[in-house]
Amino acid sequence: MLPANLLTELQRTFPPDRFYTDPVDCYSYAYDNSRKIFPPDAVLFPLTTEEVRQIVLLCNQYHVPLIPRGRGTGTAGGSLPEFGGIALSMERMLNIISIDPANRIIVAEPGVLNQTVQDAAKPHGFFWPPDPSSAQFSSIGGNIATSAGGPHAVKYGTTREHVLGLKAVTGTGDLITTGCYTTKGVVGYDLTRLLIGSEGTLAVITEATLKLSALPSAVAGITANFNDLSSCTQAIVNIMALPQLPSALEFLDAGSLNLIRGRYPNMLPVDTHAMLMIEVDGFDQDISTSITAILEACRSDGLISAQQANDTAALWQARKALSPLLKEIAPKKINEDVVVPVSTLPQFLAGLRRLSDHYQLHNVNFGHAGNGNIHVNLLINPDDTEEVSRAERCLDEIFDLVIKLRGTLSGEHGIGSEKRAFVTKEIDHVTLDLMRNIKQVFDPNNILNPGKVFPATP
Amino acid sequence: MLPANLLTELQRTFPPDRFYTDPVDCYSYAYDNSRKIFPPDAVLFPLTTEEVRQIVLLCNQYHVPLIPRGRGTGTAGGSLPEFGGIALSMERMLNIISIDPANRIIVAEPGVLNQTVQDAAKPHGFFWPPDPSSAQFSSIGGNIATSAGGPHAVKYGTTREHVLGLKAVTGTGDLITTGCYTTKGVVGYDLTRLLIGSEGTLAVITEATLKLSALPSAVAGITANFNDLSSCTQAIVNIMALPQLPSALEFLDAGSLNLIRGRYPNMLPVDTHAMLMIEVDGFDQDISTSITAILEACRSDGLISAQQANDTAALWQARKALSPLLKEIAPKKINEDVVVPVSTLPQFLAGLRRLSDHYQLHNVNFGHAGNGNIHVNLLINPDDTEEVSRAERCLDEIFDLVIKLRGTLSGEHGIGSEKRAFVTKEIDHVTLDLMRNIKQVFDPNNILNPGKVFPATP
Ligand SMILES: Cc1cc2nc3c(=O)[nH]c(=O)nc-3n(C[C@H](O)[C@H](O)[C@H](O)COP(=O)(O)OP(=O)(O)OC[C@H]3O[C@@H](n4cnc5c(N)ncnc54)[C@H](O)[C@@H]3O)c2cc1C
Ligand SMILES: Cc1cc2nc3c(=O)[nH]c(=O)nc-3n(C[C@H](O)[C@H](O)[C@H](O)COP(=O)(O)OP(=O)(O)OC[C@H]3O[C@@H](n4cnc5c(N)ncnc54)[C@H](O)[C@@H]3O)c2cc1C
Repeated sequence: MLPANLLTELQRTFPPDRFYTDPVDCYSYAYDNSRKIFPPDAVLFPLTTEEVRQIVLLCNQYHVPLIPRGRGTGTAGGSLPEFGGIALSMERMLNIISIDPANRIIVAEPGVLNQTVQDAAKPHGFFWPPDPSSAQFSSIGGNIATSAGGPHAVKYGTTREHVLGLKAVTGTGDLITTGCYTTKGVVGYDLTRLLIGSEGTLAVITEATLKLSALPSAVAGITANFNDLSSCTQAIVNIMALPQLPSALEFLDAGSLNLIRGRYPNMLPVDTHAMLMIEVDGFDQDISTSITAILEACRSDGLISAQQANDTAALWQARKALSPLLKEIAPKKINEDVVVPVSTLPQFLAGLRRLSDHYQLHNVNFGHAGNGNIHVNLLINPDDTEEVSRAERCLDEIFDLVIKLRGTLSGEHGIGSEKRAFVTKEIDHVTLDLMRNIKQVFDPNNILNPGKVFPATP
Repeated sequence: MLPANLLTELQRTFPPDRFYTDPVDCYSYAYDNSRKIFPPDAVLFPLTTEEVRQIVLLCNQYHVPLIPRGRGTGTAGGSLPEFGGIALSMERMLNIISIDPANRIIVAEPGVLNQTVQDAAKPHGFFWPPDPSSAQFSSIGGNIATSAGGPHAVKYGTTREHVLGLKAVTGTGDLITTGCYTTKGVVGYDLTRLLIGSEGTLAVITEATLKLSALPSAVAGITANFNDLSSCTQAIVNIMALPQLPSALEFLDAGSLNLIRGRYPNMLPVDTHAMLMIEVDGFDQDISTSITAILEACRSDGLISAQQANDTAALWQARKALSPLLKEIAPKKINEDVVVPVSTLPQFLAGLRRLSDHYQLHNVNFGHAGNGNIHVNLLINPDDTEEVSRAERCLDEIFDLVIKLRGTLSGEHGIGSEKRAFVTKEIDHVTLDLMRNIKQVFDPNNILNPGKVFPATP
């Protein structure tokens, strides 16, 4: 329940269509893709940076949690009001402030969808490289707060590499301006990257200066089917050793392929137990050189077939088929996005298989193999407590394996609330305490997205 | 003068060849490329992270300034012990800890020279993209602490984009481990980039995980000579609007060309008043497509000639000739490295000319035009106080122009002590205070490189 005085003050400033307090209205802001539910006490829809400042100042005064929210597509529970408070929905800050093709820059408000940025950039021959699969319905504010990335990160990097500067309001209501409007700049500390990936715990992003890249003039693809996992993982390692990076290198394991076969019995060669989808982009002629090198890198006894895809649709056919099937089993899976060094993928995927055998769990693994970023899905029945407990123990061992291989627990989803119990597996206490102190500087009253990112203090 | 007890404790731990206190020995650690002189009270040469920790803990206990130093090639006075204290020379932490071509990673200690990293990467077909002209004699610790970059930044970015993780000792003696060993990772705040460019004020970097890139298989170049500045700046804008980024786009103005002509009368076409050196790299065939497009982009009434350079030596001949000439006039110049958005280069360079005319100053301007990063050199007689004062007023107006055009005061040198008086032209007080508070978190007793980066508090 929000303090009565706060309610009164907010009502004075915001019209009812931008300030929800009715639980029914608020309920749509209670969940994200983590499938947890925490209804906020209220939802506010600011339109300007100044309004964001006013809201932060009020929440500070009354010590009320304020949870920044883009479009709620996050997978780690990052936007959920776990301890109540106000959901700060940025979805109506929708202006593209400027498009500057000569400097390859778009300045936009945080509610703008990733896809809208792409649409604005395209006529000028540009795109914004961060490419989460949720591009059509996730906001650039959310992309920045999670450092989102997708299949093309293997060549282009993630959001971190494609933002020049930000405007943001800290937990004390201070408006800060970070970075610059140029591709080089070393004046002051790099607050831009400090905010990127900070999951709404340090500041509310209210404006972003996005660095665009040129659309490639040509794209080509290869699908490669393998008899066995180890031939496939060896091909991944070979491909990543080639000088030219592929623009995407996606992997589907036997579990993923079986799921697809269940629905589309004839889509895949019978013996395929692992599959790669490889995309190359660039400027014309080089593509064919790359294709030849990649086909060569795929060659092994375990290779069933590797062939150039005729078009993008053919290349991504299997991956596209998998998506809805995964959604169908959504409530019955634990979905992780661990990363291991590419050279350890053979060891990691073999270890995964060993662990799922040991714990008698079904799993489906696929993802951005070029970055070593694998979506590990444990398929469980959430009502079977014994199975859930087995899955938890399995997950714990998977994370230990990831860390042992010098990997990281999350490549794109972030910590949110879902992974905070595991953070200390990866980050030592000294470094984590320093991060806590930085949080304290930005947000001394801990009103911005409290509880997220950090493990609960004992 | 250092406290006697501190001296005793340090003498107990460090042999005399790793702990200088004799002023004669210390003097070599009194200067950098800023040409200021501030002798340290002592110089320490740690060999391990643990030794760095011990030193920081002691300096903390006695509140003695500790100034991290790579190879002292910095241009902003960053490594100078302005307030006395101990110079912490990292030059003997020289181990390359691992070379991991399969994951495109080198892990190295901070004293390793940039060139040594390049030499270690090359046999595997890789390079580390940060390319300051000082590569042969600057350390990767210094490169990271300044986010160094050179001509190839236009395509590859600066140090910021090429470091995956760090080990570092904060001002409290805490050892932190930042980032990860993979190309994706979003667990916790991005302390890696916070330390990159922090100029030794937050932590001493003791180990770096460097991300390598594949050496291009082909490189080609073009030199273009222009009759007038505006044709040249228009060509820059045209080239940067092409889809494929050049791997270098360097500019020399009339002042630079005159300096070259003074020594080499026949090197340049007579009427050349502005010149571009353009490099393209890539994978084979595309190079020729790019060359054609760039030659087209150079075309204008003011173009005297644009032609493909036969080799790298031919491409960089004029720039190479300029370097020693600049060194000769070194004590007589104020050397800046401002950045403006590329599209405003015509306006900026015209403005520069207007200002130098108005203040009756000779100037020489050249640099990384593709990033809008121009080295502005005002040639003055340091003994002529009236001229010095004119130069100072001119500089102030140059900085104002840079900010008006949405540029930044430094593209690569950083703030150090040289530019701190101007920081508030670019960073507002609120944002600067936040940076001060972050400094406070890392280094509460202000022992690490005190006085640098921030403007003196009134
Ligand atoms: C089908 C599907 C596919 C996906 N694919 C990918 C993928 O390929 N790659 C990937 O990286 N992610 C993926 N995701 C996850 C998600 O889409 C991304 O994390 C996305 O960046 C979240 O954007 P959002 O606008 O929905 O943010 P939200 O979910 O609303 O918020 C995410 C986090 O950002 C914070 N936040 C949001 N806006 C702001 C702001 N303006 N200021 C400060 N903090 C803010 C929130 O507090 C929260 O911590 C996918 C999700 C779905 C449902
Ligand atoms: C001829 C010449 C050409 C140059 N060309 C370029 C260029 O093209 N691009 C460019 O960017 N720069 C250039 N520079 C500037 C300089 O070489 C770079 O800034 C370089 O990165 C400094 O490295 P260093 O090892 O000499 O560091 P130093 O000068 O010793 O130190 C620089 C800063 O880094 C800090 N520091 C050093 N090591 C550490 C550490 N281990 N931990 C924490 N802090 C540390 C110092 O405290 C100081 O603030 C040039 C300099 C010269 C003399």
